[in-house]
Amino acid sequence: MDLKSLTEVNPGRRVLMGPGPSDVSPRVLQAMASPCIGHLDPYFLLMMDQTQELLRYVFQTRNTFTIPVSGTGSAGMETCFVNMLEPGDEVVVCVNGVFGTRMCDIVKRLGGKLTMVEAPWGRAIDPDAVRKAVAGKKPKLVALVHAETSTGACTPLADIAKIAHEAGALLLADMVTSLAGMEVNIDNNGVDVVYSCTQKCISCPPGLAPVSFNDAAVKILTSRKTPVVSWYLDMSMVLNYWSAARIYHHTAPINMIYGLREALRIVAEEGLEARFAEHRLNHRALVAGVEAMGLSMLVPPTERLPMLNSIVIPSGADDKKVRGALLDKFGIEIGGGLGNLAGKIWRVGLMGHACCQSNVFLFLSAFETILKTEGIKVKPGALSGAAEVYDEK
Amino acid sequence: MDLKSLTEVNPGRRVLMGPGPSDVSPRVLQAMASPCIGHLDPYFLLMMDQTQELLRYVFQTRNTFTIPVSGTGSAGMETCFVNMLEPGDEVVVCVNGVFGTRMCDIVKRLGGKLTMVEAPWGRAIDPDAVRKAVAGKKPKLVALVHAETSTGACTPLADIAKIAHEAGALLLADMVTSLAGMEVNIDNNGVDVVYSCTQKCISCPPGLAPVSFNDAAVKILTSRKTPVVSWYLDMSMVLNYWSAARIYHHTAPINMIYGLREALRIVAEEGLEARFAEHRLNHRALVAGVEAMGLSMLVPPTERLPMLNSIVIPSGADDKKVRGALLDKFGIEIGGGLGNLAGKIWRVGLMGHACCQSNVFLFLSAFETILKTEGIKVKPGALSGAAEVYDEK
Repeated sequence: MDLKSLTEVNPGRRVLMGPGPSDVSPRVLQAMASPCIGHLDPYFLLMMDQTQELLRYVFQTRNTFTIPVSGTGSAGMETCFVNMLEPGDEVVVCVNGVFGTRMCDIVKRLGGKLTMVEAPWGRAIDPDAVRKAVAGKKPKLVALVHAETSTGACTPLADIAKIAHEAGALLLADMVTSLAGMEVNIDNNGVDVVYSCTQKCISCPPGLAPVSFNDAAVKILTSRKTPVVSWYLDMSMVLNYWSAARIYHHTAPINMIYGLREALRIVAEEGLEARFAEHRLNHRALVAGVEAMGLSMLVPPTERLPMLNSIVIPSGADDKKVRGALLDKFGIEIGGGLGNLAGKIWRVGLMGHACCQSNVFLFLSAFETILKTEGIKVKPGALSGAAEVYDEK
Repeated sequence: MDLKSLTEVNPGRRVLMGPGPSDVSPRVLQAMASPCIGHLDPYFLLMMDQTQELLRYVFQTRNTFTIPVSGTGSAGMETCFVNMLEPGDEVVVCVNGVFGTRMCDIVKRLGGKLTMVEAPWGRAIDPDAVRKAVAGKKPKLVALVHAETSTGACTPLADIAKIAHEAGALLLADMVTSLAGMEVNIDNNGVDVVYSCTQKCISCPPGLAPVSFNDAAVKILTSRKTPVVSWYLDMSMVLNYWSAARIYHHTAPINMIYGLREALRIVAEEGLEARFAEHRLNHRALVAGVEAMGLSMLVPPTERLPMLNSIVIPSGADDKKVRGALLDKFGIEIGGGLGNLAGKIWRVGLMGHACCQSNVFLFLSAFETILKTEGIKVKPGALSGAAEVYDEK
């Protein structure tokens, strides 16, 4: 490779309708291009305070300890477990997709005693199954994925939180895909420890993991008997930087935080309720269009996420060929299935800045055209099916 | 806080002459503001390949496994230890500042058997002390900080690498501050595992940690008996994404990688030799100016880093007041001392994009003015002392 011949980055035109990253507003990109300053500069400390307050707004929480961890969403998952768990602790993990499975992997690496509560991929977790799993145990944590990015299923929080608390456990929730796209309300729903990412409904590039710990979680952290096995993700030290003490731990990712702050500012301008309604509306229109074509959604109607739509790949269609054609001909990125669902579903994201009527129409028309080209029989009427939903509004 | 009243980010004018982050080129900021695309998009995969090749260039290595880890430099430190170590492994850590101390903390959290080799803060590690420490032991790793950011001391690599290898250990090196600012040549110097950061001599914003593992290190990783305790930093999985397999592990920080690639492209255009010479020249000029004022450097001449200059705070000077005045009046950020050296030194960085004659002159003139204002007696001639160095060139 001749290094001197490399040219400037130029990604071309894309419409990000996969499972994330989602399209990023030019305002966010512009903010990220602001001059880098020091991580203890008074102006940056002000940016930190504001980012925390904006994160509290989207998590719908009063938790003091609400910060962006310096890594991607997966670092957020690890942060929550590594700070809460000590070797030998009992943990109940709800598994209905790839990300619940990943939680189990992390719990095992940390020496936790794992109990799994499973549901079919594409379905929500049944609270009764959790009730049975905690019976007779003393779990420290019950963990679930609020919005399973690998399937598009939503597991409601409040019932399982109640079961966890009655068993003396905290509820740990993955909100990677739900945050800023639907109601999460962690305080009212009884979520004690939560993590998310920046590149889905917040529509900031990937690189940070918003987390929030309530007082019960902070108490577990500060009364540990063993040190947190990860120095980098040890929140007992990180919180001394993200608080009035401002004690240096590691150099914060300055420009990423500029970007996150701007993306959250856009969410606050729009207002959470309006944003949630927009996600629901475009989701309904997309599903109406897909179903008008005679195709099926993986997830039953009452368990569907608005921002992540899993379409069952029709018999005879070539998964990679269809996704390749969407990308090559229209610049549209959608996702394939993961794990057990590889080759079985397409995942269509309607997240944040990418969640709009134009993208719904663009996707449906491109999708219909490509399926027809591939010789897949689809019923006519995708666009009119979607349009009806917007008309009803 | 009224979230709707928050305005766009506007950090104002800064000259970053602290221990990092350093000033970032507008070209890098522009690259970071390019549209975000998917982490499996063919164009992004090309960016990954090019970034790896550019990293090999600055590490001066042929190591296949050379990638940016999705976290800051401290995540790089943790990555190296967590992938190499299993509980009970013997490790010799060289400690001559904050970052060697941090290595010891990480080794202990991971259950390693730690032996420390200490040197006074501000001095290099003595190879003979390492030789004595490894005698009769079977260490898996010998770890050192090539460029101690907390003191400004440089520890040469080759002798200690030889000692480590003769003892059957790998050499693990911190190159957070040295990379792209001075010769590192990890292949010739016998460095087996290495990490760095982006925000010092590479002059990209913080957020990524370049690492490189040679074949011996990869062999240790792939023949572990226990899983890597960190899922997020488990390089046995991450390398399946950063190789032809392209297996999804976590969503890469797309725009940060755009920025790193552009910053490395600037390094390659300039050429490593020219860049190293520039760092040495500006360092010599800065030191000449400081010494002309009658002030002292912490580190002896033969052990000084070019990019991080520790000035002993003269008696009577108020550390925070001087740094505050530099920031408030001139926008110049310099660093204070850390740990044992808090209140005893100022750390002046000359790193990457910020390493230039203009900044040397700006700093010396501002520094002299402020010290005089504070009533500290300094000799005249700082600027002419520095100018002589440039004239000699």
